[in-house]
Amino acid sequence: MSAQVRGNTNSSVGSSKYIAPMRVGVLGFGGLGQAAARMLVAKQEMLWVAAADLKGYAYSGEGLNLDTCLAAYQSQGSLGYLEPGGILTSRSIQELIAQASSVDGYFLALPNLPNTFIASVAQMFIKSGWRGVLVDAIKRTSAVEQLLVLKEELAEAGITYLTGCGATPGLLTAGAAIAAQSYAEVHQVKITFGVGIANWEAYRATIREDIAHLPGYSVERARAMTDAEVEALLDQTNGVLTLENMEHADDVMLELAGICSRDCVTVGGVVDTRNPKKPLSTNVQVTGRTFEGKISTHTFTLGDETSMAANVCGPAFGYLKAGVALQRRGIYGLFTAAEIMPQFVK
Amino acid sequence: MSAQVRGNTNSSVGSSKYIAPMRVGVLGFGGLGQAAARMLVAKQEMLWVAAADLKGYAYSGEGLNLDTCLAAYQSQGSLGYLEPGGILTSRSIQELIAQASSVDGYFLALPNLPNTFIASVAQMFIKSGWRGVLVDAIKRTSAVEQLLVLKEELAEAGITYLTGCGATPGLLTAGAAIAAQSYAEVHQVKITFGVGIANWEAYRATIREDIAHLPGYSVERARAMTDAEVEALLDQTNGVLTLENMEHADDVMLELAGICSRDCVTVGGVVDTRNPKKPLSTNVQVTGRTFEGKISTHTFTLGDETSMAANVCGPAFGYLKAGVALQRRGIYGLFTAAEIMPQFVK
Repeated sequence: MSAQVRGNTNSSVGSSKYIAPMRVGVLGFGGLGQAAARMLVAKQEMLWVAAADLKGYAYSGEGLNLDTCLAAYQSQGSLGYLEPGGILTSRSIQELIAQASSVDGYFLALPNLPNTFIASVAQMFIKSGWRGVLVDAIKRTSAVEQLLVLKEELAEAGITYLTGCGATPGLLTAGAAIAAQSYAEVHQVKITFGVGIANWEAYRATIREDIAHLPGYSVERARAMTDAEVEALLDQTNGVLTLENMEHADDVMLELAGICSRDCVTVGGVVDTRNPKKPLSTNVQVTGRTFEGKISTHTFTLGDETSMAANVCGPAFGYLKAGVALQRRGIYGLFTAAEIMPQFVK
Repeated sequence: MSAQVRGNTNSSVGSSKYIAPMRVGVLGFGGLGQAAARMLVAKQEMLWVAAADLKGYAYSGEGLNLDTCLAAYQSQGSLGYLEPGGILTSRSIQELIAQASSVDGYFLALPNLPNTFIASVAQMFIKSGWRGVLVDAIKRTSAVEQLLVLKEELAEAGITYLTGCGATPGLLTAGAAIAAQSYAEVHQVKITFGVGIANWEAYRATIREDIAHLPGYSVERARAMTDAEVEALLDQTNGVLTLENMEHADDVMLELAGICSRDCVTVGGVVDTRNPKKPLSTNVQVTGRTFEGKISTHTFTLGDETSMAANVCGPAFGYLKAGVALQRRGIYGLFTAAEIMPQFVK
């Protein structure tokens, strides 16, 4: 962590005031990574200093410029073409970590394709000797389980890793963890999301991850689909993907937090790839029994006007800020969005 | 903190497993304190070992018995009459703290009458030399501000104090802090609660605290009212209290967490003192602007079947458990429910 990041060391109230902004990197520069960068450049408390895509990376200690980064990526296909500061390399993440030692934390806005990719990136950080905060918006249970295996190694490396910190898992999982507090026993956590995007090409990797949840599909099969094949599939459903009983890490996260068994958690939703209006209001319902024996349901519903990008990247940076506070206290290891209160980033 | 309370020291995932239960005390044995005790005795992870009222206290290292405590209090007016283990004294809190050094944490289920009372209790703990976790379900902004003054003293005393950890502030404030994550800027947090209780006599102090929020009333005036005067007031409104723009600490808590200015937070509600059915569903609405410039509102709504007791005491013990984890890491001072993720207590 940068020596410039200093807060109140005596207690937490008021500790959100930093003297210098946190220095933040974003790995991945597709739809999600670009939205993250756009969000970051408007934050006073964070400075966007590093970004990487498959073919290259860009780093600037004074902060990256969003317009020039977008221009380089969109016109030439990689941040590595950025002038000055871009480096073209097939080992973009490893080289960026090695160069940018003053970065306080990274948001891994990478599609987890293949399903072992995020865990392999975590291993790159462990091997690098860098100490700081990592945050992902990973979705699958099996992907979080791969990180659980790395728990001790992350702690020993001095890395504070927060997993499952997007919308779901993330925002809604944290909402469920709060809602659970009214109950002696939690019986069901039911997450239902609605996503509307104007055109799927802006979120190619995210939509492929969704397709991978459809019956008969796998992560590998979805990843191997050409754009034309995705288009053909979407034509069959009028652009709508209906997903049920998805493998979603909300389950393992709520189980790890001791709230309920993973079997009590269900995740499903509807994604409209041809209409920015959400097909339904994203919500989580938490049903349980109170200490008095009453059965009831709390509901946390997201406003329809909030986009997937706002609901994923906002929490991701909120958890990154919370992670920096943990780092500062010497608290390393693996945490989930259900355990840590995200901090609001101005 | 008791040496028996030990968790996983490497990282937080899985740290909710304790070898021995946390040893918990409850200060105050009115409606809220009794509900807290009833909740506690059903928890595997917590052991109810101490309780105090105005006239006495009870302590047992092996755990207190709910039935005998209730019988002593209801038949003779104080836990001090409990046989064996009860002590009659007008200095019940000081004497209990001095005797019960192995208590890991206390829930202050005390009516804050006068409005300086909870802060004076915090000072008793600071002076006592006891180190552990304190949790309150305090309501007024001015009451939390008195604790803020004690922030450094609490930290130096090795006390981890979590304030505003009931329903509102508490459960709903934490829900608002989560909901805020989708926004670049939070414009309004609007808390509206519905409370239904079968008869006001079960919550004499709580109802007096509500009356104190009515136009023309103060904490002192409400406290000085006889039961007959309260009854007469309630007769005028058919048992319903409608409260608007209440002085509620949700505002200062969300401001301290950096989420919004206190002026953006409003708290109001309807209390029906003659019907256990809630007059409206308790909810918090969080309105803000996303990084893309959209205005939207997230809503967190509590199930009507959850009682005030479930929504206050559940979070209080969830924060107490989180506080014990902070203690174990040597983290002392003052925290609010908007900063810390409560942990689920089995």
